[in-house]
Amino acid sequence: MPTFVQILDFIGTFAFAISGIRLASAKRFDWFGAYVVGLVTAIGGGTIRDLLLGVPVGWMQDPIYLICTGVALLSVILFSKYLVHLHNTFFIFDSIGLALFTVVGVGKSISLGYPFWVAIVMGTMTGAAGGVIRDVLINEIPLIFRKEIYAMACVVGGVIYWICYLAEIDFVVTQLISGAGVFLTRILAVKYHICLPTLKGEAQD
Amino acid sequence: MPTFVQILDFIGTFAFAISGIRLASAKRFDWFGAYVVGLVTAIGGGTIRDLLLGVPVGWMQDPIYLICTGVALLSVILFSKYLVHLHNTFFIFDSIGLALFTVVGVGKSISLGYPFWVAIVMGTMTGAAGGVIRDVLINEIPLIFRKEIYAMACVVGGVIYWICYLAEIDFVVTQLISGAGVFLTRILAVKYHICLPTLKGEAQD
Amino acid sequence: MPTFVQILDFIGTFAFAISGIRLASAKRFDWFGAYVVGLVTAIGGGTIRDLLLGVPVGWMQDPIYLICTGVALLSVILFSKYLVHLHNTFFIFDSIGLALFTVVGVGKSISLGYPFWVAIVMGTMTGAAGGVIRDVLINEIPLIFRKEIYAMACVVGGVIYWICYLAEIDFVVTQLISGAGVFLTRILAVKYHICLPTLKGEAQD
Repeated sequence: MPTFVQILDFIGTFAFAISGIRLASAKRFDWFGAYVVGLVTAIGGGTIRDLLLGVPVGWMQDPIYLICTGVALLSVILFSKYLVHLHNTFFIFDSIGLALFTVVGVGKSISLGYPFWVAIVMGTMTGAAGGVIRDVLINEIPLIFRKEIYAMACVVGGVIYWICYLAEIDFVVTQLISGAGVFLTRILAVKYHICLPTLKGEAQD
Repeated sequence: MPTFVQILDFIGTFAFAISGIRLASAKRFDWFGAYVVGLVTAIGGGTIRDLLLGVPVGWMQDPIYLICTGVALLSVILFSKYLVHLHNTFFIFDSIGLALFTVVGVGKSISLGYPFWVAIVMGTMTGAAGGVIRDVLINEIPLIFRKEIYAMACVVGGVIYWICYLAEIDFVVTQLISGAGVFLTRILAVKYHICLPTLKGEAQD
Repeated sequence: MPTFVQILDFIGTFAFAISGIRLASAKRFDWFGAYVVGLVTAIGGGTIRDLLLGVPVGWMQDPIYLICTGVALLSVILFSKYLVHLHNTFFIFDSIGLALFTVVGVGKSISLGYPFWVAIVMGTMTGAAGGVIRDVLINEIPLIFRKEIYAMACVVGGVIYWICYLAEIDFVVTQLISGAGVFLTRILAVKYHICLPTLKGEAQD
């Protein structure tokens, strides 16, 4: 029987893979290209985190991530017409994935003895770096650098994790509150179009 | 005396470097930029593989890859006019490189005790990831995600390796059959314009 | 009290971060996006170097790099109007950073027992790879592959380091001469518009 966290992990991986596959398909990628972009979106953040932390890379321990991306590809191939109407469902799934990946990244870093500022960076990277690599591969400016609050939600969740830890709150409760913090920040940011300020840029020579 | 595999490795590295240098030159890169793009095309896939496998990075053990890329740059500088007519020769060289790099990647992963699904991913990465980084650096959508079967040839070779391994076929024969599988898949795909299906993409919001 | 090298390191990090933040702001990135691009410009080269060398990643040992990038972001937000007039100052700072990062990269590699050709690649990567990742993230062709001598200055500095080492010159003097070599090469290249030759590229099919 898979645990509750494993089910959430599968949902998050699936949602991230779907987002990569759909953006790739909008660029006329073939099935293989779409699969790669979906996979990278789902596992890219965790991979960079594990390389930086110097621990074995997560997706190389369990084929579930490759299988899950395959299921996502199949879903897009078979049901692409209907997926458009599931926009809000995917948004919820994506936000669940973001919350879970962040909490996993923060927790893993702390359990390895890293200080909190490293853990927050790692949590944010786990949640958001896959989407950055996805956008680089489809040759677009990374979405998360310009649109509604996305990666900042991971930072918020990381800071909440820290505060809970300092307040010696129970481990499971800490994870739940932190994950809820990421999820709600993201949902509210999109619902109320909350963006970070933009820099007044001047073109450089 | 270099071994047969070392000669194939040199040919593959040279062909990959030439492909990077020529695409960089089409974008008006200077000599240094072209050298870097050529080098990354040749060693990028193996570098990511070694980082993920947690072993010392291949090109840092032997200067041959840097030298080989230098020879490739010199060739393009001196003979760029004539290289155009060698299109088919380079295609054959590139396919040899793809086959060899795939077999090396699969073999290295297995010898380190990784399961076969990891080995196939690593073989594909060794063969194809360098070309993806090359296209990111020259700011193009990676070619292998949209054109004739390329990285899929690596997957085919990896699966053949697996079957041979399960059938307890001799190690050298396994490598030859697997490499031939990559090479022939690639050659036939280009000759008969075999492409993977493309996803019917709709632009997202 | 911070040492002289720490002060130079802070100046270099600050200058690299500013360059990332300003280019990001020209692309209308939000504050978070600009911070990430600034951070990656400052620490990207060193991060890749440390992963390749198989040692703990530098910026994860000390929060100064994250703080320094935060100060850089704040400076751009508050003083962006005035920064334009400081163009030459930033150019000097950036060249100091380039020189210091190169020397640190070469020195670290040698102290780990790597041969000199690896050390020169690592020094060049420490100095120049951050700028390449920056340009990939803002979806531009990397500047250093096409404009005045930049990464070549790191190679020059690395070779000088090597010659000093062979001549058994004192360690501190070696570092100073090598760093001065990078700095002067860069300054002179920009002052006299010294570029490397460009390849005569033909568009490929």
